[in-house]
Amino acid sequence: MIDLLSICSFNAAYAEAIDSDALEQWPAFFAQQCRYRITNVENERDGLAAGIVYADSRAMLEDRIAALREANIYERHRYRHLLGIPLVQEADAQAAVSRTPFMVARIMHTGETMVFATGVYADRFVMVDGKLLLEERTAVCDSTVTDTLLALPL
Amino acid sequence: MIDLLSICSFNAAYAEAIDSDALEQWPAFFAQQCRYRITNVENERDGLAAGIVYADSRAMLEDRIAALREANIYERHRYRHLLGIPLVQEADAQAAVSRTPFMVARIMHTGETMVFATGVYADRFVMVDGKLLLEERTAVCDSTVTDTLLALPL
Amino acid sequence: MIDLLSICSFNAAYAEAIDSDALEQWPAFFAQQCRYRITNVENERDGLAAGIVYADSRAMLEDRIAALREANIYERHRYRHLLGIPLVQEADAQAAVSRTPFMVARIMHTGETMVFATGVYADRFVMVDGKLLLEERTAVCDSTVTDTLLALPL
Repeated sequence: MIDLLSICSFNAAYAEAIDSDALEQWPAFFAQQCRYRITNVENERDGLAAGIVYADSRAMLEDRIAALREANIYERHRYRHLLGIPLVQEADAQAAVSRTPFMVARIMHTGETMVFATGVYADRFVMVDGKLLLEERTAVCDSTVTDTLLALPL
Repeated sequence: MIDLLSICSFNAAYAEAIDSDALEQWPAFFAQQCRYRITNVENERDGLAAGIVYADSRAMLEDRIAALREANIYERHRYRHLLGIPLVQEADAQAAVSRTPFMVARIMHTGETMVFATGVYADRFVMVDGKLLLEERTAVCDSTVTDTLLALPL
Repeated sequence: MIDLLSICSFNAAYAEAIDSDALEQWPAFFAQQCRYRITNVENERDGLAAGIVYADSRAMLEDRIAALREANIYERHRYRHLLGIPLVQEADAQAAVSRTPFMVARIMHTGETMVFATGVYADRFVMVDGKLLLEERTAVCDSTVTDTLLALPL
């Protein structure tokens, strides 16, 4: 049975991988066949599937991280994810659906810190060989204004 | 026995109802006879009971939501609640007292995001027909400056 | 066995002590022989042990609080800690190692609220007479710019 605590632990490890610059670990939180999107609340309400960022396999997520390293984005800013308690909507031994609120601060090279994005992860988890993985994560941002610096994963 | 995880789950659902604009669900998180207040730390220390917002029944909370819909506040801004882990001070099978820190971001129609309010929920929970409900929630804001836009529930 | 929930509860009480101005309770969250540091991510990466703030016993933490009271810092600002879910890296019956992300807002006397610091607590916990205590807490701030107002404990 996938439960609240296992999703909490998953999310803690997910956020730590991004925020500690262990970006290469990030794709491994997803199933091989997966869907990762960043979109906003208005697009989501209107049923626009694409979003600001879209990937439909773990391989695409790996490509994305390789591109970020190439662009050397990390030198320019860091993120800090604060995640809320997941609202578990469905859960059994094999899969779970939950929503987890997020607030992400961006810390610039100059030291300036600001709230960069808020929203909710709409997630579908699956158990694969005893390991909890994301089959789908949609980061629905509350703000409809897309920052052109949007680069690190949410 | 009301425990930490049940309060965590309650709070996750409470925040999601507000932040996803399902405001009509909000009063149902409270017992019929309840007390909901928004106040600040200085007023609370001085024992001023009233606060910025005051309601003493679920019916008053329903009226408040109806008024918000009438005023069409939702078009103008959204909230995103990030809630901390509750500090459970007392708990048995029928009731619990806890304090939960909050940070609420406000997202304006323009996309601008800011930390709108921080503080702590001082709560008393009761079990009613097997369901956890708020008998009392006091949102004690850290800032003593009341924003005139204060409108959505905290 | 020290588990995720016991660390969550510990952190909730720790943050509440600071944010509710019960600063005199703060040293009691640490073992008598302990290490408390505030540093930043670049210093930590470079292995600089000292940090912005350094204490290596509970007595030093008590001195620090006494000094803060003397300086009457509390009148000038408050903090609100929002802590994430701990990532438990090692745990047995006697000790645990975990990382907990934090976001701290500062609320000035004027009511102005801002994100003051983000980062991660790198912690080592120990059980002493059945009580969970910090043997080591390093608050690793994401920003390398130290605010000269840095005063209250993180």
